[in-house]
Amino acid sequence: MTGVQDGAEALRHKQKMAKRKAAQDAEVAAKTITQRGLLIVHTGKGKGKSTAAFGLLLRALGHEWPCGVVQFVKGAWDTGERRAFARFSEFLSWHTMGEGFTWETQDRARDMAAAVTAWAKARELMTDPKIKLLVLDELNIALRYDYLPVAEVVATLRARRLDLHIVVTGRNATPEMLEAADLVTEMSLVKHHFAAGVKAQEGIEF
Amino acid sequence: MTGVQDGAEALRHKQKMAKRKAAQDAEVAAKTITQRGLLIVHTGKGKGKSTAAFGLLLRALGHEWPCGVVQFVKGAWDTGERRAFARFSEFLSWHTMGEGFTWETQDRARDMAAAVTAWAKARELMTDPKIKLLVLDELNIALRYDYLPVAEVVATLRARRLDLHIVVTGRNATPEMLEAADLVTEMSLVKHHFAAGVKAQEGIEF
Repeated sequence: MTGVQDGAEALRHKQKMAKRKAAQDAEVAAKTITQRGLLIVHTGKGKGKSTAAFGLLLRALGHEWPCGVVQFVKGAWDTGERRAFARFSEFLSWHTMGEGFTWETQDRARDMAAAVTAWAKARELMTDPKIKLLVLDELNIALRYDYLPVAEVVATLRARRLDLHIVVTGRNATPEMLEAADLVTEMSLVKHHFAAGVKAQEGIEF
Repeated sequence: MTGVQDGAEALRHKQKMAKRKAAQDAEVAAKTITQRGLLIVHTGKGKGKSTAAFGLLLRALGHEWPCGVVQFVKGAWDTGERRAFARFSEFLSWHTMGEGFTWETQDRARDMAAAVTAWAKARELMTDPKIKLLVLDELNIALRYDYLPVAEVVATLRARRLDLHIVVTGRNATPEMLEAADLVTEMSLVKHHFAAGVKAQEGIEF
């Protein structure tokens, strides 16, 4: 390629990027609501729903926000996450209420009782004016199995403070939850190493 | 509902869950490859690609694994993540090489040079036998803009050690990258508060 062509390509690139920046700046300027506690939902069959919620939690903790976590159904799991988050205990109120996945316990009454207790804790954290981010991990699962009344749960989440962000995770988010959410991300599984006969890897999957 | 119906429902639930557990146990037993450094790709237009990668990083740090991060194009951003990860500095080698999003710099030659430097750092970290997880944040963007030779990059990633997990993020993952990956998750945007006129929220988006 000649120097002239190099220059022409660089110029085209610069013009394209300048146009994109102008479009982005205009989009930002069009926003008028400056403060809103977001209801964020991570759903879908793919991986990363809880992991991304914990990434958001970590970012909030980096801002030294007081935060809360209620885990609805993953109680029995010993993950590196809890050990890592122990370093932020001065900002973080962590509550694991579930009894593990429901196909481990095989006891609907016990799972339901655990979900009710977890939801009471979630409501309590919502009323704490210091807390700025609350992760309700696997709440969608509890709603899907009808362990909690969806209308009441969603109405309570809608009534959150203006300065409280809430992240709800779990596959099969209900239509009511999606309707109430400000931001919904669906995680889809495109490819998985289990299909290639590879076992779950420590530190990655547990 | 009568006590008899309650009992019948509880039994049905228990049987269903027992069946699911048996299926899951059989699936786990069928896995034969016990150790493999996974190549994990987070792509798609939705949010959470980098956030979920940082969640995986956090989990690995909870296991006290030495880890590395190379950020390819988000250099200028001041996020809570970096401040939060500062608490794990004894295990974490963090390198931010990019100059910010490319439509901010509008300088292809400079972006390309930054990508080349970042890739050299990534290869260096890959050869460090202590490192067990490496996050190559927004590498897909650098490949998409042809800042780096995709064939060489993917061949190098394929040649990773058996005990090194690599997480690659960024939209528009190339077919070569998807082919080489063990685990691919696509994040799709279902709903976004920008459409409702809400500005980017501190601690959530930056």
